Amino acid sequence: MSVRLGLLGAGRIGKVHASAIAATPGAEFVAVADAFPAAAEAIAASAGAEVRTVEAIIGADDIDGVLITTPTDLHATLIEQAARAGKAIFCEKPIDLDVKRVRECLAVVEETGAALMVGFNRRFDPNFMEVRRQIDAGTIGAVEIVQITSRDPAPPPADYIGRSGGLFRDMTIHDFDMARFLLGEDPVTVFAAASNLVDPKIGALGDVDSATVVLTTASGKLCQISNSRRASYGYDQRIEVHGSKGLVSAENVRATTVEIANGDGYRREPLLDFFMTRYTQAYRNEIAAFIAAIASKQPMTPSGDDGLKSLLLADAAVTSVREKRVVEIG
Amino acid sequence: MSVRLGLLGAGRIGKVHASAIAATPGAEFVAVADAFPAAAEAIAASAGAEVRTVEAIIGADDIDGVLITTPTDLHATLIEQAARAGKAIFCEKPIDLDVKRVRECLAVVEETGAALMVGFNRRFDPNFMEVRRQIDAGTIGAVEIVQITSRDPAPPPADYIGRSGGLFRDMTIHDFDMARFLLGEDPVTVFAAASNLVDPKIGALGDVDSATVVLTTASGKLCQISNSRRASYGYDQRIEVHGSKGLVSAENVRATTVEIANGDGYRREPLLDFFMTRYTQAYRNEIAAFIAAIASKQPMTPSGDDGLKSLLLADAAVTSVREKRVVEIG
Amino acid sequence: MSVRLGLLGAGRIGKVHASAIAATPGAEFVAVADAFPAAAEAIAASAGAEVRTVEAIIGADDIDGVLITTPTDLHATLIEQAARAGKAIFCEKPIDLDVKRVRECLAVVEETGAALMVGFNRRFDPNFMEVRRQIDAGTIGAVEIVQITSRDPAPPPADYIGRSGGLFRDMTIHDFDMARFLLGEDPVTVFAAASNLVDPKIGALGDVDSATVVLTTASGKLCQISNSRRASYGYDQRIEVHGSKGLVSAENVRATTVEIANGDGYRREPLLDFFMTRYTQAYRNEIAAFIAAIASKQPMTPSGDDGLKSLLLADAAVTSVREKRVVEIG
Amino acid sequence: MSVRLGLLGAGRIGKVHASAIAATPGAEFVAVADAFPAAAEAIAASAGAEVRTVEAIIGADDIDGVLITTPTDLHATLIEQAARAGKAIFCEKPIDLDVKRVRECLAVVEETGAALMVGFNRRFDPNFMEVRRQIDAGTIGAVEIVQITSRDPAPPPADYIGRSGGLFRDMTIHDFDMARFLLGEDPVTVFAAASNLVDPKIGALGDVDSATVVLTTASGKLCQISNSRRASYGYDQRIEVHGSKGLVSAENVRATTVEIANGDGYRREPLLDFFMTRYTQAYRNEIAAFIAAIASKQPMTPSGDDGLKSLLLADAAVTSVREKRVVEIG
Repeated sequence: MSVRLGLLGAGRIGKVHASAIAATPGAEFVAVADAFPAAAEAIAASAGAEVRTVEAIIGADDIDGVLITTPTDLHATLIEQAARAGKAIFCEKPIDLDVKRVRECLAVVEETGAALMVGFNRRFDPNFMEVRRQIDAGTIGAVEIVQITSRDPAPPPADYIGRSGGLFRDMTIHDFDMARFLLGEDPVTVFAAASNLVDPKIGALGDVDSATVVLTTASGKLCQISNSRRASYGYDQRIEVHGSKGLVSAENVRATTVEIANGDGYRREPLLDFFMTRYTQAYRNEIAAFIAAIASKQPMTPSGDDGLKSLLLADAAVTSVREKRVVEIG
Repeated sequence: MSVRLGLLGAGRIGKVHASAIAATPGAEFVAVADAFPAAAEAIAASAGAEVRTVEAIIGADDIDGVLITTPTDLHATLIEQAARAGKAIFCEKPIDLDVKRVRECLAVVEETGAALMVGFNRRFDPNFMEVRRQIDAGTIGAVEIVQITSRDPAPPPADYIGRSGGLFRDMTIHDFDMARFLLGEDPVTVFAAASNLVDPKIGALGDVDSATVVLTTASGKLCQISNSRRASYGYDQRIEVHGSKGLVSAENVRATTVEIANGDGYRREPLLDFFMTRYTQAYRNEIAAFIAAIASKQPMTPSGDDGLKSLLLADAAVTSVREKRVVEIG
Repeated sequence: MSVRLGLLGAGRIGKVHASAIAATPGAEFVAVADAFPAAAEAIAASAGAEVRTVEAIIGADDIDGVLITTPTDLHATLIEQAARAGKAIFCEKPIDLDVKRVRECLAVVEETGAALMVGFNRRFDPNFMEVRRQIDAGTIGAVEIVQITSRDPAPPPADYIGRSGGLFRDMTIHDFDMARFLLGEDPVTVFAAASNLVDPKIGALGDVDSATVVLTTASGKLCQISNSRRASYGYDQRIEVHGSKGLVSAENVRATTVEIANGDGYRREPLLDFFMTRYTQAYRNEIAAFIAAIASKQPMTPSGDDGLKSLLLADAAVTSVREKRVVEIG
Repeated sequence: MSVRLGLLGAGRIGKVHASAIAATPGAEFVAVADAFPAAAEAIAASAGAEVRTVEAIIGADDIDGVLITTPTDLHATLIEQAARAGKAIFCEKPIDLDVKRVRECLAVVEETGAALMVGFNRRFDPNFMEVRRQIDAGTIGAVEIVQITSRDPAPPPADYIGRSGGLFRDMTIHDFDMARFLLGEDPVTVFAAASNLVDPKIGALGDVDSATVVLTTASGKLCQISNSRRASYGYDQRIEVHGSKGLVSAENVRATTVEIANGDGYRREPLLDFFMTRYTQAYRNEIAAFIAAIASKQPMTPSGDDGLKSLLLADAAVTSVREKRVVEIG
């Protein structure tokens, strides 16, 4: 029996997930809703799904799970509605930019017993999955230091910056989740230093665009994160994990393996420079994992609690920069 | 209006092309035929196509083009039938193992004016396409020396060897096509040296498993090919093209970018070790090119003539090894 | 006319510098002193130099400059004596582990007008020199984030740890100097987090063995340092510098370019695992620079002030860990 | 007791070997001779050696071995004289360009029992030594296919081409020796294809500048060599050896590990582009091996016979190109 899905939000990331559903055997894409009917209709037409209202999808008998890819400010409310309607829920990160609202929402999820998965897609990247698999296999012994380099190719538009929650809640939050995924232990302190170096407009909006973060855990593990809103050479997404027995690292991804050599030296192409291209397979794997969890009634990962914990780290980083101090996580 | 396709042959490679059709916008997979009905039904079911007989597909009014993925000994006959029925034709390489039969078949294709594309999938690999694009862009100046390393992970089963036409017609033929694709000029001499080093069973079947080939062109360009039926580290598929201004090369492809370091050194995973995994994107691009050529009524590449010319090079290599001499291409 | 040199201290690093002098045209190695006459004699014999007392070397008329490679606790006193005797001075880092003593010593150097160079050899590594050269050439635009990974192959003996001044003053001090060399601006804040993960004996001695440091400058540049006393895969010494226009990085150094591939994957050898092997060329270049500065009467770099500033950063890091706070540099 | 050496020929390569002697403990550089007294005096002065005549060096009682680095046409005669004088002999390749003359010379060497080493320096390159060591250790099982890519950065001056003996005897001869070194078995057939693509002046002199060679051994091992007199990206010197259990390869060597990334991609510097820089360590190791063989009275490798055999392969390659056929080695 196939897993029947509805999509709430027919924007850029909604389309990615619609493709992922189509590529997943055992999944059926039933319906899509969007405030812009044309967007919903485009996805529906190409996927053989119906256009319905949000309410109709959440309340439908022929739908097992919903994917929430609306603007962020609707996430928590839709999660609550879907949870009460007994739907399995996939929600893009973040649940909300406000920790209090996230806690309320997760209380509803808990109370209803709904299955909730939060969209930290990078956990499903084949490279980072392999890093984690090597850690779990004991290849590098006990994890000691995690180093994450995460740089966007270019800053988002100014209007996006304004409603993004700022660098730490919008961009670093993925790295906080990756840090937790790889450390195998929750950070207990956060220190962040940040600057506005890339674009003065970002500073004018009260945000930063360049940052370094240090996390520590109770057992003394360390994690470094390096962020920038700019990387002229592409979307820079690297990880290295140092352990008691060795190092496991994941390098960047390129479209081809071609190299050109001449009097100027040896040149390889820039990195894939768009998150949807870089993480195509991760998005596929993520949605497949959501569908498999529904089918098998297994717990979902990353969970709502994972979403909350990374948001708490982001909030702590904001505090750390503002108050120029180390922040302890309660 | 979409391009309507029929598939003749529901084996391993037939399935790959069925997926490629599904992934190509503007294509419609109408019907599939196979000597084993169950195989045809499996593909039909998953793709929403019908099962028909070969004759019904070739004669169908609702089909624009056929893909021939049957055993090799049927290729030429099916091409002729499809050409006479006015269908556009994609045929897996080789058209036939016998040059005379290939010429007869191509005469029919010419006479009927049918559009024919031969399945040298590697021309559509993103890495090798980029190598060619750089050559065409003048990045390396005039091509001087092409070096192709092409090694299978492991020998095929003995019964396959027996009907394969031998190493040069079965395996090197891809490299001959790649040489022609990159040299931009037809070879005029072939020299091959070959040995049976990998498995004595291959030698007992009268075939070789390790080979080096040198091609020269009229203008003095040189090409080296290195082949083996064994590569413990995966499917080794590399190219380098040296020109008057520089070098362009394509390295092997791996599933991940992960590296592990410890007291034994730095270790990366083996290569992708299966041709269908290694060339997944190439197969997609190839079928998309076939479909696009039908839709736009543009000439198809690689053509039947490309198929013939690589077979002539393979035959020359066989002669070169047998007679221990350089063979000139007529 | 050649530059005539005396060596104070015939230990491991003294031997390295004796070789460097021999390899530098225009330098003459006149005499060596050591508390252990046999050590001095061994160097003297192989280099064609005399054994003298420390006092005789510092007071000699036939010596232009001295190299101080004694135990650390003698550095400051010998610098003062040599400065007063009008000698040019090369001194291994650190001048002293105590900032107050360093300041006293530098006051004498200033008062006497002596030329003093401090042994931060890594500035003379060909790879890091090239990184700096690219920055100076404007290749990457304005420097924004510096990332230094610096890991020793294995912890030093416990008795060395005890008198080393601790991780930050002994090991990270090289990275502080490198940070200053590459940032082109002095850090104004230091944050450090550190743990004892490698060997409990190090913790028992009150020291740490794993650390991350964040430096910020007045203009908002950021620097990350990652340290460990253990790297099973060799001596890990990497740098990346992100700027407004791009990235310049220096990878690790290996003895050979050999790679082995088989069913386990692709394997390269571990890194050079000894600082003297890894930095052989850096030591040569460093001593050549000292000799050239004497000959040309040019200012010496890195200077005594560079030595002091990196020690201040190390002290700040110690404070940061102890007091769990960001430390501002006065 | 030290090994006392005389140098016959104070040109470019003579200077390299003079440095190598100076860097080898247990060696004493006694005297140098050259047709140009100034050249000999320059080396003598910097090395603390005497200038003598060739005859005086060959006849000297205070000299154990001679290094012959004169123009090629003097090699054989000087080897014969030194052999008769009981000296150990190191001679740059080739012994002579004429096989008959080489055989005469080697007959004298055999008759006198003289120790003779021929200067195939690449055997002493740390990378290629490691490749050989891995083969000897059984890492890749039985050797099956050797692939050598060997390209000069730029053609030598026309007047050098004229007296070089041609590409195969001048340049490929190093690759022939490397092939023998790695195959562990003498080639029995040679096929070569060659062109004049780089510079018409080379063709006008009757020589080629681009070549591919295939060697086979009695047991069926294969070797490919790819040569060009031009490589815009530096001195291209790569080897891969495929065996029954895996692959061992040696990549090119660069001056630094620096990489620059920006919108144009990732760029590393060109290769070392001068044979003396690329093979600095090989020259050192080679001379150290010569000296060690004198001291220990062990057989010398590569021997005069190694020199002869590579010349025979070169001659066969010349014949192969001229007569467009495979040439069997007697």
